[in-house]
Amino acid sequence: MGDAPQNIYDDPEFLAGYSTLERFGHGWTRAVEHADFMALLPDVGGKHVLDLGCGLGQLAFHMAEHGAAKVVAVDLSERMLAVAQAERAHPRITYRREALEHVVFDSERFDLVVSSLALHYVEDYAGLVRRIARWLAPGGVLVYSTEHPIYTAIDPATGWVTDAEGRRLHWALDRYADEGLRAQRWFVDGVRKYHRTFATLVNGLVDAGFMVERVLEPVPDAETLRRRPDFADEDRRPTFLLVRARKPRRAAVS
Amino acid sequence: MGDAPQNIYDDPEFLAGYSTLERFGHGWTRAVEHADFMALLPDVGGKHVLDLGCGLGQLAFHMAEHGAAKVVAVDLSERMLAVAQAERAHPRITYRREALEHVVFDSERFDLVVSSLALHYVEDYAGLVRRIARWLAPGGVLVYSTEHPIYTAIDPATGWVTDAEGRRLHWALDRYADEGLRAQRWFVDGVRKYHRTFATLVNGLVDAGFMVERVLEPVPDAETLRRRPDFADEDRRPTFLLVRARKPRRAAVS
Repeated sequence: MGDAPQNIYDDPEFLAGYSTLERFGHGWTRAVEHADFMALLPDVGGKHVLDLGCGLGQLAFHMAEHGAAKVVAVDLSERMLAVAQAERAHPRITYRREALEHVVFDSERFDLVVSSLALHYVEDYAGLVRRIARWLAPGGVLVYSTEHPIYTAIDPATGWVTDAEGRRLHWALDRYADEGLRAQRWFVDGVRKYHRTFATLVNGLVDAGFMVERVLEPVPDAETLRRRPDFADEDRRPTFLLVRARKPRRAAVS
Repeated sequence: MGDAPQNIYDDPEFLAGYSTLERFGHGWTRAVEHADFMALLPDVGGKHVLDLGCGLGQLAFHMAEHGAAKVVAVDLSERMLAVAQAERAHPRITYRREALEHVVFDSERFDLVVSSLALHYVEDYAGLVRRIARWLAPGGVLVYSTEHPIYTAIDPATGWVTDAEGRRLHWALDRYADEGLRAQRWFVDGVRKYHRTFATLVNGLVDAGFMVERVLEPVPDAETLRRRPDFADEDRRPTFLLVRARKPRRAAVS
């Protein structure tokens, strides 16, 4: 415990690299896990929603446009929020600059909490999930995506083992049970991600009182593969893990 | 779908090999996942228990000795059951020779269903889990261990990639999303196991109406490592996945 929240998205060099990714900005709908993430979302109509790690605000804006009563969209990056405010302002969205590690809300304030690819930057997963459980009303839903334990176990840059012709032979898995910090180069040196096992991800939800409703490990469909040949090996080893979990209604607690 | 149930444990050559494993017979308590499996079991006192894939009957006998009202212990192997009957007969155990794929019970007959390292031989996991859910009384518990998706994705015999001196460099992961049959040599050729992803294991339980209560990916403790230096790399890649899931009480269903 104890690392200060990381604000890598305000690093100009990181952001210059990150902004070249297809998922940046309008391309977010073409990300490999996008369709699966959207399929996990409940109907947002009339809902009070919290978006943890909103980035450029694509998901927050989508939910506001689809009838969410109120979206609170939190991110630590000033630069990302500036773009979100400029390009995706909406009368029902409040953008807020805070670290997921420190943000505070009243109990039972939200019907839905979403988080797209932010939790692997957070050191205290169990603590954050417990806080999310408090912020959700009974019957409320958490939907998140995170980097997959198989992907985070080692430095992804050295993950694919190739032959002399550069063909991918297999993915190098190691250190699976050795949870914790994985500092790595991703556009810049020293990006901090946290590796957690599948058991830790599930048990953290259970211990916070959630019922796990769905786990998805997205694989690109044929149409996606035509557009993104670099996703061809996603079925050989997963990059992302998606979860939908629900806080029980009071009647179900015994 | 459609492979006939496999009865590899009645193959004399397989059994000759399998019986050399430390976990065979009395050594079952020294298996790497044993302590974690036992920790997932609820108090068996007065419970009606079903053991799917009981093998030599060690777990069934343990539960009968610890006060289970009735243990039905099912296995397809005549040879394994003969040893179980000879060495672990108990007035509250009924050994039954049947395939897990075909065995039938009345609804809500059991309080607890256990299965130790048998589910990866079963082709239709979702179907078996649905049948187990029917056999369990409301509030009943399922505890199982199975080979881990990281372990079953490729042929485990070629899993560790070693350097020229035989040192293990990493585990070769591949074909993760390519679920299904993995025929492999394990003492004999053609042992049939089925690879399934985490998502499939969890969602199968959810779809059958279970609440997932715990997932464990056992790693040996220091004492175990002294006894079994061959377990030293278990923390680098897991072999087993353990689950406890509960059928909701009627009041909790809405």
